[in-house]
Amino acid sequence: MDRTLRAFSIHPRLEADCHRLGRLALSHVLLHRNAALPWLILVPEVDVIELCDLAPRERTVLDAEIDRVCALIRSRFAHITKLNVAAIGNLVPQLHVHVIGRHPGDACWPGVVWGNLHAGGAWPEQQLRELGAALAATPA
Amino acid sequence: MDRTLRAFSIHPRLEADCHRLGRLALSHVLLHRNAALPWLILVPEVDVIELCDLAPRERTVLDAEIDRVCALIRSRFAHITKLNVAAIGNLVPQLHVHVIGRHPGDACWPGVVWGNLHAGGAWPEQQLRELGAALAATPA
Repeated sequence: MDRTLRAFSIHPRLEADCHRLGRLALSHVLLHRNAALPWLILVPEVDVIELCDLAPRERTVLDAEIDRVCALIRSRFAHITKLNVAAIGNLVPQLHVHVIGRHPGDACWPGVVWGNLHAGGAWPEQQLRELGAALAATPA
Repeated sequence: MDRTLRAFSIHPRLEADCHRLGRLALSHVLLHRNAALPWLILVPEVDVIELCDLAPRERTVLDAEIDRVCALIRSRFAHITKLNVAAIGNLVPQLHVHVIGRHPGDACWPGVVWGNLHAGGAWPEQQLRELGAALAATPA
């Protein structure tokens, strides 16, 4: 299917919960508005809901984009010691991959963030700009 | 590093929580003992803790093995409508990937299973044998 003929839109719940941080070749990169943790979300422009239904080439590109987001978190948040990477989608039926920087003592350690993260502060505008620039500068 | 020179062992917590279902080229495949849901776990024999630190070839093989486990869940549990795929590892510092079959109305829908799944029944021996055989028969 020629995707240029179809409009792609990010699910309204993701739009409401997140800032848009940037655009990679396949994925939109979002940052959850809750600044308690660096919680990024990749939304690939694809027609499937499950990772296992991606075309091999899409899977390879998505993996590389996940890795760029992991590198971004490691480079900009020195206190992060663990990464959580997950495609869940029980609530939002659009394929999206969470990449979350974690460390012992964070707001829900060692629990998962989903369903456990209380309201937190907002990201400063300056930091959002810096993160967007840093994402764009991660090696492809 | 020549891994044949090193002993690999599955983390004791995973061993305690799971049945061993089979062995693929890279990963051991476990089944969580809680039979409320088909909750499988891949434990690749690698030296890294994060997905993004895998060698490209290992990542490709692990993706294919994740897909085999997804196919197994779809083929053996017809009521499953969603797959959850996640590498978390906050409690068990050994790379492992959860692949969980979900459906509306299951024991923790739409929440995640981690931290939310109450004690459930056990898998019948017969079903364990069938699942192991079906895993081995999934196309590589």
